[in-house]
Amino acid sequence: MFSTSCLGNAFGGDADEPFTVGIGQYDDFHTIDWQRDLTRDRLRHKFIKKKSHESVCNAISSVIDAGSGWICVLFVGIAAGCVAGIVDISTKWMSNLKEGVCPDAFWFDKVHCCWSANDTFFSGDKCSAWHTWPELLGHYEADALAFFVEYVFYVFWAISMTGLAVVLVRVFAPYACGSGIPEIKCILSGFIIRGYLGKWTLLIKSVGLALAAASGLSLGKEGPMVHLACCIGNIFSYLFPKYGKNEAKKREILSASAAAGVSVAFGAPIGGVLFSLEEASYYFPLKTLWRSFFCALIAGLVLKFINPFGTEQTSLFAVDYPMKWSYIELIPFILLGTFGGIVGTIFIKGNVRWCRMRRNSKLGQYPVAEVFGVTLITAFLSFPSEYTRKSSSDLIQQLFNRCGPEDVSELCSYKRNAESSEDPFEPALYNCIWKLIVVLVFKIVITIFTFGIKVPSGLFVPSLAIGAIGGRLVGIAMERIAFTNKEAWWWGLHCERGRTCVEPGMYAMAKIDLLFTLLEDRFFLVSLVVIMFELTGSLEFIVPTMAAVMFAKWVGDALERKGIYDAHIALNGYPFLDNKEEFIHNTVAADVMRPRPGDPPLRVIPQEGMTVGDIEELLRCTRHNGFPVVVSMDHANLVGFVTRRDLSLAIASARKTQECVVTDSNVYFSAVAPSAAEGPGYPMPLKLRKLLNLAPISITDQTPMETVIDIFRKLGLRQLLVTHMGKLLGIVTKKDVLKHINQLENDDSYAILYS
Amino acid sequence: MFSTSCLGNAFGGDADEPFTVGIGQYDDFHTIDWQRDLTRDRLRHKFIKKKSHESVCNAISSVIDAGSGWICVLFVGIAAGCVAGIVDISTKWMSNLKEGVCPDAFWFDKVHCCWSANDTFFSGDKCSAWHTWPELLGHYEADALAFFVEYVFYVFWAISMTGLAVVLVRVFAPYACGSGIPEIKCILSGFIIRGYLGKWTLLIKSVGLALAAASGLSLGKEGPMVHLACCIGNIFSYLFPKYGKNEAKKREILSASAAAGVSVAFGAPIGGVLFSLEEASYYFPLKTLWRSFFCALIAGLVLKFINPFGTEQTSLFAVDYPMKWSYIELIPFILLGTFGGIVGTIFIKGNVRWCRMRRNSKLGQYPVAEVFGVTLITAFLSFPSEYTRKSSSDLIQQLFNRCGPEDVSELCSYKRNAESSEDPFEPALYNCIWKLIVVLVFKIVITIFTFGIKVPSGLFVPSLAIGAIGGRLVGIAMERIAFTNKEAWWWGLHCERGRTCVEPGMYAMAKIDLLFTLLEDRFFLVSLVVIMFELTGSLEFIVPTMAAVMFAKWVGDALERKGIYDAHIALNGYPFLDNKEEFIHNTVAADVMRPRPGDPPLRVIPQEGMTVGDIEELLRCTRHNGFPVVVSMDHANLVGFVTRRDLSLAIASARKTQECVVTDSNVYFSAVAPSAAEGPGYPMPLKLRKLLNLAPISITDQTPMETVIDIFRKLGLRQLLVTHMGKLLGIVTKKDVLKHINQLENDDSYAILYS
Repeated sequence: MFSTSCLGNAFGGDADEPFTVGIGQYDDFHTIDWQRDLTRDRLRHKFIKKKSHESVCNAISSVIDAGSGWICVLFVGIAAGCVAGIVDISTKWMSNLKEGVCPDAFWFDKVHCCWSANDTFFSGDKCSAWHTWPELLGHYEADALAFFVEYVFYVFWAISMTGLAVVLVRVFAPYACGSGIPEIKCILSGFIIRGYLGKWTLLIKSVGLALAAASGLSLGKEGPMVHLACCIGNIFSYLFPKYGKNEAKKREILSASAAAGVSVAFGAPIGGVLFSLEEASYYFPLKTLWRSFFCALIAGLVLKFINPFGTEQTSLFAVDYPMKWSYIELIPFILLGTFGGIVGTIFIKGNVRWCRMRRNSKLGQYPVAEVFGVTLITAFLSFPSEYTRKSSSDLIQQLFNRCGPEDVSELCSYKRNAESSEDPFEPALYNCIWKLIVVLVFKIVITIFTFGIKVPSGLFVPSLAIGAIGGRLVGIAMERIAFTNKEAWWWGLHCERGRTCVEPGMYAMAKIDLLFTLLEDRFFLVSLVVIMFELTGSLEFIVPTMAAVMFAKWVGDALERKGIYDAHIALNGYPFLDNKEEFIHNTVAADVMRPRPGDPPLRVIPQEGMTVGDIEELLRCTRHNGFPVVVSMDHANLVGFVTRRDLSLAIASARKTQECVVTDSNVYFSAVAPSAAEGPGYPMPLKLRKLLNLAPISITDQTPMETVIDIFRKLGLRQLLVTHMGKLLGIVTKKDVLKHINQLENDDSYAILYS
Repeated sequence: MFSTSCLGNAFGGDADEPFTVGIGQYDDFHTIDWQRDLTRDRLRHKFIKKKSHESVCNAISSVIDAGSGWICVLFVGIAAGCVAGIVDISTKWMSNLKEGVCPDAFWFDKVHCCWSANDTFFSGDKCSAWHTWPELLGHYEADALAFFVEYVFYVFWAISMTGLAVVLVRVFAPYACGSGIPEIKCILSGFIIRGYLGKWTLLIKSVGLALAAASGLSLGKEGPMVHLACCIGNIFSYLFPKYGKNEAKKREILSASAAAGVSVAFGAPIGGVLFSLEEASYYFPLKTLWRSFFCALIAGLVLKFINPFGTEQTSLFAVDYPMKWSYIELIPFILLGTFGGIVGTIFIKGNVRWCRMRRNSKLGQYPVAEVFGVTLITAFLSFPSEYTRKSSSDLIQQLFNRCGPEDVSELCSYKRNAESSEDPFEPALYNCIWKLIVVLVFKIVITIFTFGIKVPSGLFVPSLAIGAIGGRLVGIAMERIAFTNKEAWWWGLHCERGRTCVEPGMYAMAKIDLLFTLLEDRFFLVSLVVIMFELTGSLEFIVPTMAAVMFAKWVGDALERKGIYDAHIALNGYPFLDNKEEFIHNTVAADVMRPRPGDPPLRVIPQEGMTVGDIEELLRCTRHNGFPVVVSMDHANLVGFVTRRDLSLAIASARKTQECVVTDSNVYFSAVAPSAAEGPGYPMPLKLRKLLNLAPISITDQTPMETVIDIFRKLGLRQLLVTHMGKLLGIVTKKDVLKHINQLENDDSYAILYS
């Protein structure tokens, strides 16, 4: 009955590698245990190191293994740059498609079409080679009709594009919608969402993003770009088992990918590294900093090489203001900061309420109809105004611009060569102010409803646009004040003539920070400010911008403590332990641990004495993700910890491969165990010590919760064991901690006072 | 005999505040326990919160307490800005003093002197109101004599200044010498060095820094500025007991101060925040990020207001290169990176070896003589060359500059209006190249010997200068290549004419990163790159600079793993656990913990059963900083941990204040203890449970050392207790870990392979 294979024990060997397929992996929607994964990597490393001395071939593969992180991020950087370039080019082409087409070469966008035609007359807006739809269809008789046809085409294309995007997303890759940043944050913090970073998501999101961005909806393509880069990182990590098979190590690649994503989205490599450092990466081992840096650099280089916008500019919205700022201007900057804080809070609250309503009402069942509706409204209302018809990026660029002498736009209706005493403001400018106010309100409202629909959508460009409009308005007002009071002492030395000492575009530039700060996450301001400076290429206004950001932060904090992404994480109920918020309560581990008073006692496994059947029964009856192993049922001294998945896999595999393991077989977790049956008639023992995590982190029951949270955050744990005088008392999981925090937050409004 | 006061127990009360003066404090050169200090702050907070409901006055003081962090950093920012302004102004004045004086107003420096004179003829170098020493003394007869007199004065002033500086430092504040960054890093990581951040250090270092910087020695004032800012932070923190009396909380203020220091030193507020985030702050709670931001902002504003350089520039070395870079130029940038890596390594190795020699030889006993010697050699060799005579900052600015059409300096000897085929290089330029090479070697050598002498000295400006010289040389070479091969395809589209497509100054700008990266710390590159861009105000060259930095890092890593500051930390033997290096060995906690096999058993205290006399004996016999408290001598189940200092203070105080506590009194650490003597004739018990840390972090003996180091780094612990199956086995302290790491590093060269 007992074959020879039963004499040895498959799980008692000395191999340093995981001995059963699947052990050490995680289920969907589970949280990873960083320390355990890193230990696994260390064992793998040790194994390779040992082998490397055996042969030249092994030595080479050991060196390749050491360099594989660099190689992987190199690939990721190249691929991210290429994908970003393709998305940028196709967005531009499709965006122009709404207005017209290049009949000679339909694959050209407007700018390239006009270039290829070699027109002598090309004022930036019109050229002979490019045909708008009415022109193409021959409707020249009446301007009104042409306008109408143009309008119809505009709306038609917008709806077709978003329609295609939403259908693609619904059918092929449901994870491809939204901005993806909240989920990326959770994934980087150690959460598993299978398929979220898969190849289908990458493909569909790239296409859908280009379509959605081109459709004229109030959305940006920067957030989704980070998601795309992370998909690329995930896909490439499977080329290297070191990263593909170890979730903790994979996150090092994903951090670098996120940096590359920001780098290509904003043309801001340093901002990307900081974003990945501060925001996205929960458990950021500092050595990955260099890889992120490298990855962001490569991605930026590749994108620069592709040069999708046809400009040589490395910064997206290059500005060049020659003037200095005077101290008095800190006041409007601070006002802008305050205003930004308020608008941001309105936006967050409105958007979260709308998303909650969508989820709880019937609306949530008709996402396609919602997308059509939002697109129809947006396109219908956008077309009439020149400020909303053009793409948000063009609008931002226009708002940033200084009014040059040849600038004929409404925004620049100043009297040229006016005498210093004469009022340089023309009536058209006042007209323009009203238009801008309407556009501002429209943008805020429509963005609240747009962020969260089922197409790929980011928030950066819309919030930039809102901020830039607000900033420009304040800028014009300041210009007016400066003109009226140009003799006043408080203008300082900078202002000899009223006109030149205030630059409205500058305010537009500063404002973008504020709102963005609010919208994204109030904590990662440094990376934000750096991104801003990389984006605009201007460093002169660091100090006023920082002041504005500070005030936006203070106002925002007073009104609402969560950034939009954190609000969405909470909305979706992801187990994300924010590593920035402070915990100020006085509870201790004993208050949070399970079993709660009155619950049945903690399910533990004694290191010897349970049979295979007992354990199978235990696995059947409970849903815990792991079990502490103790000396014996009477002496609850902790020996180690075993996860549910490993245990069930190991037992199932032993049952299958070793016929001598039966229901009555004793299971041994102890170091010393009989290697054979204790006598005839007794079943073969099953040794599972290899499964055991011998170094589970334990704390005492009196440990303050602040320390507990600190340990969870910083060590990236999945659970903590609670002991009292060396005896195991209970267990605290990440979800228990999150539940506890939420409970206290809802109970206690005191927390807000001590921010 | 037993007074009534003996019936109650002074240490058993319910007060939430520390009950004995000095408890919870640390001795000099000890390491703080972050978790413990933060717990103390939480208790204090709870106490204030409870009291705040009692009266309006308490409520107000509670709000003040909550805001005191902001108020404190506001003061620090203002003070740091002022101190930096004063140091800058006096440096400039004294630096000019070496050359001459303004007889009408001796308190003016050269520029202000010339301004005040309202000279029509002021070419930047000479003006009638300003008199050089030979002019003032009337030696006009022979140029050679005037030169000689000037020379003598130059050397005389240099020696007087450094002499005064070194004497001040020796007599009043020995901690005021050096750059201070290594010590600041250690202090921020939780090390206590009393007096290092005191008011005397602040005063003497400010004066000494201005003297040393003005003397012409090859040193910078940026590192010491961070030290000065931290002194200010430390002094102001005493105004707020919340920070002044809690070492862990104080470090939050110090982090913000470090940010302000960088902000004023480089005019780089964002770089300051990043510096403080990445480099200086060991245990950086993210909420201090905002305070650092605020502090850096205020300091920057104040300095801008003081405007010590009389320019409106916010960036120290503003550059403005209009051209783009072409891909081919990545090659020289990479070469520069490689070269920077090599020079940096030579510098580190040379400087560390020299410092070690100084320490071990007789030289270390004559620091004043050493300073005189180095100053004499520097001044003597510097004066003859125009590149070394001027201050390093001026030299850097000159090297960065583009050669304008009116530029008559040797560095810009190009033929104006040369035909495109004609060689634009004049012989003077070749001459100049040789001079620059000599200056480069001189600077490298003299800086190796200067960094470490007993005057306040930083490294930033000298390494910038070295880098800029090297970069300019490569730039000139590239220009030459570009000229020779101007038709070659690989120049890309940028380069229609050989002359304009390469800007030597640009290379100078890139080079500074590289060397600095090496010198400071190879890990904090991001803050470095940001500082660079803030310093120069130029963002166009992010990508090539990043590429150069990457290569400098790789080369540097291959040659030498430690940055200069880390090398100095190691040299001084500070207990600094680098939170960036990876630990790749396979040891476990059992290999590191004490007692080692063969040692006497671990000294523990049972929770009851020891008398006051026993504990006093224990304190006398051992030098441990703390003792684990266990259930009983037989059952080593862990109850808590008590520090040596607290224990001896409490016992001494009990002995003094309670006459009923005698040598035979039983000491109770248990929760349940007799509150009075057990009977007549028995001594009064002493309850010390309040001293006990009931939540010491413990790990199992099988915990891998990587995890242990992670826990030490991330939780900021002082010791970890090691258990096996719930029983206390031993203890691991930070110093044990450091010793272990050093041991393994010296044994094992394998570590270098897997960087």
